[in-house]
Amino acid sequence: MRMEATASYQSGKKPTNIDEVIPDLPSGPLDQHRSRATFNWKVMKAYLDPPYIIQLMDKACKFLENDPVFQHRDGDMTLEEERQITYKRVRRLMSHEFVDEDEIMYDYKKAPALNIVIGGYDWSLAARKGLLTNFISSGIMGLGTEKHYHYLDALKNFEIGGCFCLTEIAHGTNTRGMRTEARFDSKTQSFILHTPDFEAAKCWSGNLGKTASHGLVFAQLYTPDGVCQGLHCFIVPLRDPKTLLPYPGVTIVDMGHKLGLNGVDNGVMMFDHYAIPRDNLLNRTGDVTPEGVYETPYKDPNKRFGASLGNLSVGRVGIIGFGVVHLRKALTIAVRYSAVRKQFGPGAEELPVIEYPLQQWRLFPYIAATYAMDNFTKCFHRLFAEFRMEMLDATDKDRVALYGQEVHALSSAGKPISGWIARDGIQECREACGGHGYLRCAGFGELRNDNDANCTYEGDNNVLLQQTSNWLVSVWNKKSKMSAKHPMGTADYIDNSNHILKHSWKTSPLNLTSSDQDIVHVCLQSLQWLVCWLCEKTSKALKAEIAAGADPFTARNNTQLYLARSLSLAYVRQVIVAWFEQSICTAESSVQPPLYHLCALFALTEVEKIMPQLVEGGLVQDGSFVSMVHHHIKRLCTKLLPDAVALVDAFALPDFLLRSALGNADGEVYHHLKTAMFTAPGAMSRPKDWQEMVYPTPVSKL
Amino acid sequence: MRMEATASYQSGKKPTNIDEVIPDLPSGPLDQHRSRATFNWKVMKAYLDPPYIIQLMDKACKFLENDPVFQHRDGDMTLEEERQITYKRVRRLMSHEFVDEDEIMYDYKKAPALNIVIGGYDWSLAARKGLLTNFISSGIMGLGTEKHYHYLDALKNFEIGGCFCLTEIAHGTNTRGMRTEARFDSKTQSFILHTPDFEAAKCWSGNLGKTASHGLVFAQLYTPDGVCQGLHCFIVPLRDPKTLLPYPGVTIVDMGHKLGLNGVDNGVMMFDHYAIPRDNLLNRTGDVTPEGVYETPYKDPNKRFGASLGNLSVGRVGIIGFGVVHLRKALTIAVRYSAVRKQFGPGAEELPVIEYPLQQWRLFPYIAATYAMDNFTKCFHRLFAEFRMEMLDATDKDRVALYGQEVHALSSAGKPISGWIARDGIQECREACGGHGYLRCAGFGELRNDNDANCTYEGDNNVLLQQTSNWLVSVWNKKSKMSAKHPMGTADYIDNSNHILKHSWKTSPLNLTSSDQDIVHVCLQSLQWLVCWLCEKTSKALKAEIAAGADPFTARNNTQLYLARSLSLAYVRQVIVAWFEQSICTAESSVQPPLYHLCALFALTEVEKIMPQLVEGGLVQDGSFVSMVHHHIKRLCTKLLPDAVALVDAFALPDFLLRSALGNADGEVYHHLKTAMFTAPGAMSRPKDWQEMVYPTPVSKL
Repeated sequence: MRMEATASYQSGKKPTNIDEVIPDLPSGPLDQHRSRATFNWKVMKAYLDPPYIIQLMDKACKFLENDPVFQHRDGDMTLEEERQITYKRVRRLMSHEFVDEDEIMYDYKKAPALNIVIGGYDWSLAARKGLLTNFISSGIMGLGTEKHYHYLDALKNFEIGGCFCLTEIAHGTNTRGMRTEARFDSKTQSFILHTPDFEAAKCWSGNLGKTASHGLVFAQLYTPDGVCQGLHCFIVPLRDPKTLLPYPGVTIVDMGHKLGLNGVDNGVMMFDHYAIPRDNLLNRTGDVTPEGVYETPYKDPNKRFGASLGNLSVGRVGIIGFGVVHLRKALTIAVRYSAVRKQFGPGAEELPVIEYPLQQWRLFPYIAATYAMDNFTKCFHRLFAEFRMEMLDATDKDRVALYGQEVHALSSAGKPISGWIARDGIQECREACGGHGYLRCAGFGELRNDNDANCTYEGDNNVLLQQTSNWLVSVWNKKSKMSAKHPMGTADYIDNSNHILKHSWKTSPLNLTSSDQDIVHVCLQSLQWLVCWLCEKTSKALKAEIAAGADPFTARNNTQLYLARSLSLAYVRQVIVAWFEQSICTAESSVQPPLYHLCALFALTEVEKIMPQLVEGGLVQDGSFVSMVHHHIKRLCTKLLPDAVALVDAFALPDFLLRSALGNADGEVYHHLKTAMFTAPGAMSRPKDWQEMVYPTPVSKL
Repeated sequence: MRMEATASYQSGKKPTNIDEVIPDLPSGPLDQHRSRATFNWKVMKAYLDPPYIIQLMDKACKFLENDPVFQHRDGDMTLEEERQITYKRVRRLMSHEFVDEDEIMYDYKKAPALNIVIGGYDWSLAARKGLLTNFISSGIMGLGTEKHYHYLDALKNFEIGGCFCLTEIAHGTNTRGMRTEARFDSKTQSFILHTPDFEAAKCWSGNLGKTASHGLVFAQLYTPDGVCQGLHCFIVPLRDPKTLLPYPGVTIVDMGHKLGLNGVDNGVMMFDHYAIPRDNLLNRTGDVTPEGVYETPYKDPNKRFGASLGNLSVGRVGIIGFGVVHLRKALTIAVRYSAVRKQFGPGAEELPVIEYPLQQWRLFPYIAATYAMDNFTKCFHRLFAEFRMEMLDATDKDRVALYGQEVHALSSAGKPISGWIARDGIQECREACGGHGYLRCAGFGELRNDNDANCTYEGDNNVLLQQTSNWLVSVWNKKSKMSAKHPMGTADYIDNSNHILKHSWKTSPLNLTSSDQDIVHVCLQSLQWLVCWLCEKTSKALKAEIAAGADPFTARNNTQLYLARSLSLAYVRQVIVAWFEQSICTAESSVQPPLYHLCALFALTEVEKIMPQLVEGGLVQDGSFVSMVHHHIKRLCTKLLPDAVALVDAFALPDFLLRSALGNADGEVYHHLKTAMFTAPGAMSRPKDWQEMVYPTPVSKL
């Protein structure tokens, strides 16, 4: 049964017929699977993105697809070639023919949507584009003053290109430990930048390796009296824009091959008493007079430091979405391949491997996770945009402060869970595609390698989680004493903890006939219970450590395992499930049932992971709840089988972006595999050095 | 405190002083960690391998280290270059200067030890070397007859080179579904090999892509009467050994880039009515007379099929060990780096990140897993060698049959768990090394990519696990009715299931003061309980499926989730822990305490994973056991902290094999990082095409 696709949607201006916006998929071996779907995949696609966003993405994708410089390469690429082609593509995107940058500014949905297209094409490209102009521009706006704004035009016109230099070889996470020096010399009215040793070299800056002409460099500012005034940011000319040679006093080394993102030229940099003019200090949060006196509007150096790093947090919200794109691609490939690939069967006819309960159990929870995380990302983007609007006209400063803390806490757990779900999902999809999944042309290698970076940059996942638990413990300690609520309300239920912690399930609250709604409800209860239980336990443990004489640093370290760390993860899981359920009501009724299956399946798999602690804390009192969780996971996998292909069709990226021989929309797996292998350079010819490889003919046979 | 290293060991002939065999490690930043160890790492090293094996491995490693062709490359390598250098290295290893092949035949420890060196250097090299001669030789010996033995000499003298062609594009796991045809033509006394379509093309054969002159090709044998006699193996000339060009009628395509193992030239092959002489049928299990009549000593075609594939199972036992080598390398890098890398601290001084409980909890369970799996591999190699000896002089045919089944079942769960523990361990190590762990020179990329193949080849992990559960269910169904025991005794406790299943822990059997021995004992009990409980449940579920009318195929598929699959994993975990504990008694007393910590830690982390099912089945009745498991995991991590570096020193591969800027024995992380980055080709020069990258100078500035 297939639903009619007659619904109309707001495109901003006029109603749009869904079939005009979303063309049919090509016919092929997937037809039979698609015809089994209980819903119209186009309606689902329109639930995920409004039609005007679909159109914007299509337009962007077509631009790439039709431009020679964006055609995919095959065969080998040297590191230099990878950097070079990525750079050419950045330039092409910045040629203003791609999209009207002004247009995307006024709709928070547009920039992330375009980033899905560019990043879905290549994350190296997305990263370099962002770093060359946007990232450095917002740094100058946030940290500089009017005298620096001429750099913004130069960046926009591409007369200069930027990079962001914070991390040092021996210091990443601990930003205060940076050791690059900037000593003010009042005689020459300049700052003398110096790198004391290799461990203090700036590193990991994207575009630094080969490209950038200017860097935003963080360094410890020393006034002539020898006092260190803390970390400050300078705009530093690094290379001659006409020759790309570094200026004398600047040593730049390309960091070479990485596990992924090799289109980005991350670099290492050391200064050797390199002088830059006094005006190059971005002086919004602190300045040095010509006489060498330090001046700052901030009395508390901690606050100044916080303010100067605050604008970095935007990155994490973005990265949450990167993981979703990886998941969308990995699941598209694995589900379509599993629907086509046949192996064994009860009789002579072989079964598509997607028919196997084991294969469903391996893949479908990740389809559910993809929907859950896609929704989480979009909700977060919306709320983050609201937060930034409120920050701009900050009428209620307390509310903005609370909003900021909550955004920080949620993004600090959201980035880790997104990176890790994607990591595990990509790997399961890779393995679920068997040997052919191990071919580069299957596409999983790039997904795995690029996603891996998400677990580390913009804050190591495990370190970030501590930010979240710190906030949760503070919320716990202040509970019912707070006059104002946190605007997103992601932890409001903590106020209700007395009631929540009274729950105790002698036997399973779920039974064989529980509905998806019941399941989601029970899972949310479990997660909320765990957050409250762990808040209480972590808070108590922290106090006990302090009482026993530990310093706060040691106390926090000793309360991570099975406490603070688990707490942060339970908190973000609860938000993801709750937001998913909320958004289902906004969907057309025809797609609500599969969405509820997905929401319930995701919730169950997340609850499965916390089961030991639910038992430990006494919420779960016997084994029946475990049985029911297993039962419903199996049931939902079976239930989702007819919809699986349509569910990935709804979030699949176009073949051009997907770039997988196994995952094309036409399902012609073996045709594409054959083409990929037969047309690869040199696939059928002898090695160049074949003479060195021939076998010796024994004398007797001569 | 450091133990004296005065113990003597059997080297086969004369006692050896441990300090003669194992030189000291270089001094450096790791000294302070090493001096904290509670044991002498050399004594631990000698527990892992007897001194004569250490010497053999050292000799082999030195050979590689001193030969120009084995020097590591930097910069870029094209696929062709990677294949070429790997091939050169294979030839060099086969030049007989490396080791005396005859010598290693008579000691089951030697071949795996050498494989650790060669594979630890490069798994592509190990794979190609094995495939070019050994693998094909044992195929000819197992499946051929005297008339084929001349090939063995030719292989040994390298006048021909082999590959093994079983898998087809559309059939891997289901070997019976292969569709390559071999039709006997009595007129020409030849078999006509033919590939009906691309889906029946042979694929994934290592060495096929560019190298092999001959293939062992599996094809469906058709007699002139049109009857298909099933899958048979042929030795097929593929390429002219003098030119390396494929013979007319044979199309060979290199499979191109893979996620890892790119030194191996996996190939695809299609036959177009390609004739080979009748004698090229390996005719041990079946033959065709010149008149075209099929003859076989096997009446049951299933048995013939089983016999012809039986000699493949040796691969799995080997692969279990590959995962251990990957773990040894990953942990060496991550632990040494964590001991040197400092970040944050309670005061002005920063702490090495290994001091953080969270970092310990991320890494130390994998140190434990490495010791557990290393021991498992070695025990299994010994028993497998015994099994092969018994098979040769098969006096007790029933015992050999039981032995074979048990080996098959254990290897079918051992390969998956080894691949998966390595997969997760490598990834955790990668992430634990932060940004620098993402550099290619850190070494994790190659480990991850090469290990990934272990999850798929020689049987997909999830499919293999079914072999184990099938056997366990059959053991369950026959329990206490068996006259003879399975020789390895890995599931003997099932006979005792009535007693085992009576256990039920109202409260935790562990308390705060439980010893390592107590912990291991309780964990073994838990695992044995789970195996029995799941045997019973799976067996009942299977019977219920059959009673409800399901065919055996469907019944098995419907009883995998939370049943058969969990069963196989619980079974192998129990064996790994049990064998580990057994071997500790053979160690010198000074290293027994840390070994027991490791054994307990490994056992606890494995029990943590099965906790939901222990609750479900009612063994665990309240939360106190969970608390105790968490408590002891934390306690053991703390306990192992002073020993961590020495524990990895004991299993570390030499720097030359480790090949990681972060993991060298001298601990000089930043020096090695600097050298790696500064000396990489082109690291400090402009891109070749820099003219295309310069920034436009605005007209106003001209």
